[in-house]
Amino acid sequence: CQNPHFHQISFVSLSTWTAFPNFDGKDRVLDISERNYKKALKRYDLLCLFYHEPMPANKGLQKRFQMTELVLELTAQVLENKDIAFGMVDSQKDAKVAKKLGLEEVGSLYVFKDDRVIEFDGELSADTLVEFLLDVLEDPVEIINNAMELRAFERMEEDIRLIGYFKGEDSYYKAFQEASERFQPYIKFFATFDKTVAKHLSLKMNGVNFYEPFMEEPAVLPGRPLSEMDIVEFVTQHRRATLRKLRAENMFETWEDDMDGIHIVAFAEEEDPDGYEFLEILKDVARDNTNNPELSIVWIDPDDFPLLTTYWEKTFKLDLFRPQIGVVNVTDADSVWLDMSDDEDLPTAEELEDWIEDVLSGRVNTEDDDEFADDHENDHFVPEDEEEGDQDPDEEDDE
Amino acid sequence: CQNPHFHQISFVSLSTWTAFPNFDGKDRVLDISERNYKKALKRYDLLCLFYHEPMPANKGLQKRFQMTELVLELTAQVLENKDIAFGMVDSQKDAKVAKKLGLEEVGSLYVFKDDRVIEFDGELSADTLVEFLLDVLEDPVEIINNAMELRAFERMEEDIRLIGYFKGEDSYYKAFQEASERFQPYIKFFATFDKTVAKHLSLKMNGVNFYEPFMEEPAVLPGRPLSEMDIVEFVTQHRRATLRKLRAENMFETWEDDMDGIHIVAFAEEEDPDGYEFLEILKDVARDNTNNPELSIVWIDPDDFPLLTTYWEKTFKLDLFRPQIGVVNVTDADSVWLDMSDDEDLPTAEELEDWIEDVLSGRVNTEDDDEFADDHENDHFVPEDEEEGDQDPDEEDDE
Repeated sequence: CQNPHFHQISFVSLSTWTAFPNFDGKDRVLDISERNYKKALKRYDLLCLFYHEPMPANKGLQKRFQMTELVLELTAQVLENKDIAFGMVDSQKDAKVAKKLGLEEVGSLYVFKDDRVIEFDGELSADTLVEFLLDVLEDPVEIINNAMELRAFERMEEDIRLIGYFKGEDSYYKAFQEASERFQPYIKFFATFDKTVAKHLSLKMNGVNFYEPFMEEPAVLPGRPLSEMDIVEFVTQHRRATLRKLRAENMFETWEDDMDGIHIVAFAEEEDPDGYEFLEILKDVARDNTNNPELSIVWIDPDDFPLLTTYWEKTFKLDLFRPQIGVVNVTDADSVWLDMSDDEDLPTAEELEDWIEDVLSGRVNTEDDDEFADDHENDHFVPEDEEEGDQDPDEEDDE
Repeated sequence: CQNPHFHQISFVSLSTWTAFPNFDGKDRVLDISERNYKKALKRYDLLCLFYHEPMPANKGLQKRFQMTELVLELTAQVLENKDIAFGMVDSQKDAKVAKKLGLEEVGSLYVFKDDRVIEFDGELSADTLVEFLLDVLEDPVEIINNAMELRAFERMEEDIRLIGYFKGEDSYYKAFQEASERFQPYIKFFATFDKTVAKHLSLKMNGVNFYEPFMEEPAVLPGRPLSEMDIVEFVTQHRRATLRKLRAENMFETWEDDMDGIHIVAFAEEEDPDGYEFLEILKDVARDNTNNPELSIVWIDPDDFPLLTTYWEKTFKLDLFRPQIGVVNVTDADSVWLDMSDDEDLPTAEELEDWIEDVLSGRVNTEDDDEFADDHENDHFVPEDEEEGDQDPDEEDDE
C-alpha cells in the first residue's frame, strides 16, 4: 500500500471490524413465488415473510419500502447462522401464494414455525426483529430446574407469565405446551418438574399459576389437570393487564387493544429517580385495582423508544424528562394530562386513584378542553395534512 | 370506500399511526456543495455531515451506502423540529468543501456546533444517532440545584462525570465550561452554585471533582481555581477507566483505545441475576485496582447490542446467556476466556484478580492455545475471506 494514511485507516477499521461487523449489503431475502415457497417452508426452522403491496409509484413510499427491505436484509445477515429464511410476498404478483399461505394484512410480517403462523406486530427495526425471532426459535416452554432459575423467573415482573408443575413430559404437560405455542413469544410459559421449586411457588401437581405483570400474587387457574383449551381460554380472558408495559415487539397490538377508543398512558423513565418513584406509585394503584376490568394503563418508558420521544413531546405537548400520566384518544391523538408540574411532589396513590376514577367515569376526558384549544394543533400528523395524501400513511408496517 | 376489509385496516392504521408515526421517505438530507455549505453552517444550531466515498460500483457496498442514507433520513425526520441540518459530502466531488471543513476520515460523521467539530464514533443507527444529537444540542454543563438533582447525579455510576462548585457564572465557571465543550457529549460536566449541594459532595469553592465510572470516591483535581487547560489535561490523562461500559454512541472509539493490542472484555447482562452478581464482583476488582494504569476492562452488556450478540457468540465461541470474561486480540479477534462453566459458582473477586494478573503478565494470552485450534476458525470475518474482497470491509462507518 503506497498511501500511509489509507493503510492506517484500514488497519484501524480491521480491528474494530473484527469486533463489530457491518451491514454487508448481500442479498439474502428471497423473492417468494409459487415455485419456491413450499421448499422454503419445509427447509427452514423458521420462514419469515413480509407481505407487501406492489412497489409504489410515490418516491417517499418507495424509500420506506427500501427501508423495510434493508431491515430484513440486515436481520437476515445477523441471524445467518440460525436456520431462518426471509422472503417478500407481493400482494399482486404473488396473490396465489399469499392466499395459500393465508396472508391477509398487507404490510404485516408472518413467521412460519412448524405448522403455526405467528404475526409480528411490533416495530419493524432490525433490533426488535432479531430479538423477536430468537424468542420464536426457542422452545415455547422454559423449564425451571433450580433456585437460581427460580430467582430469574421471579424477577420478570414486567411479563405475563404462566408456570405449571408436572410429573414429567406427560399428557398434562403436553396440553400446557400446546397452549404455550398459541401465545409464543408474547406470553412466557414455564414449567417445573421439581418438588422444591413447586413448593416455593405453592404449586400443586398439574396446577398452573398465572402472573399478571407487576402483581405480587399469581392467580391459580381453576381446575386440575387442565386441557389445552382451559389454558387458552384463561389466558385470552386475562391477558389485558391492569398495568402493561409498551414493548417494541408488540406495540401495535397493545395500542390497538384500546378501551372504548382511549388509552390511559403513563410515561416514566425507570432509570430516572422521579420516574422510578412514579412507577412505584402506579404499581400500587394497579395492585389495588387489579380486579377492575375497565382499567388498563399503558406504561411507556421513553428510553425504550428514542425515535418516538420527540414526536410524543410535540403531539401531546409534554416534557418527557418528567413522569406524566394522561388520557389519549386513539383516533385523533387528542389528550389530557394530569397536572404534576410541582417539582418536588408526585401525586400519592390516592390522588392518582381519584384521577383515574374521574377518567373512567368520563369526568376527565379529551374533549372538555377543546373549545379553548386550537382545534388543529394536535392534528398535524393525521393524513389530511399529509403532502402525499394519496396513500394511507402506514399501510406498510402498522396494521 | 367499497372494501370493508380495507376500510378496517386503514382505520386501525390511523389509530396506531397517530401514536407511532412511520418513516415517511421524504428527502431531508442535503447534498452539500461549495454553493450551500456556508449557509448551512450559519443557519442551523447543528450541522451533521456524513463524509463518504463516491458511490461504489459494488452492489453490496451500494446497499450499505443506501442504508447509511436512510439512517440519516430517518434521523432527520425524527429531529425535524430541532434546528439540525444533515448533509452528505462526497470525498471526490466535494473534495474542496471537505478540505475547507477539515473533514479527514472517509466514513465518519462530523457534527458542527458553533465553532466546534465533534466526530461521531458510534454505531450508525437512527436510535444511537438521535440520542447522540440530542445530547450535543444540550448545554455542555448541567447545573445541579437541589437534592433531587443531586440524587440523579449520584446514580450515574456508569459515566465519567466532573462536577465543579462556583460562585456563579464567573471566569472560573467559564473556564470549566470551555473545557466541557471539548468532551461533549462523551464526558458529562456538572456544576453547582449551591452551598448545600457542594457540602454534600465535599466540594470547595472553585474546586472540581472527577468521578471515574463505578468508583465510590471521586478524585479531586489538583489546584484551585483551575484553568481550561488544567481541566482538559486532567481529563485526557484519566479518561480511560479501570472498568468502562461499552456504549453504542462511542463504541469504535472505545475499541480503538486498546492496551497493547488486546482488550480484557467482560460480557454480563445487568438484568440477569448471574450477570448482575458477576458485575458486582467486577466492580470490586476495578475499585481495588483503580490505580493500575495497565488495567482497563471493557464491560459489554449483550442487551445493548442485539445485532452483535450472535456474531460475538460465534466469533468468540461463547454462551452469552452466561457472564464471561476473556482477553481479545483486537487485530484478529483471537481470544481466550476464563473457564466459569460451573453453573452455581462465579469466581470470587480474588480469583478474578489472580486471573487478571495472569493476563497482564502474559501468562494468559491469546496465542497459547493456537496450536490446538483450527487456525482459521476465528478468521471467518477477516477480509481475506470476503467475497467482495475489492474493498476494505468497513471503510464506510468504522474509522
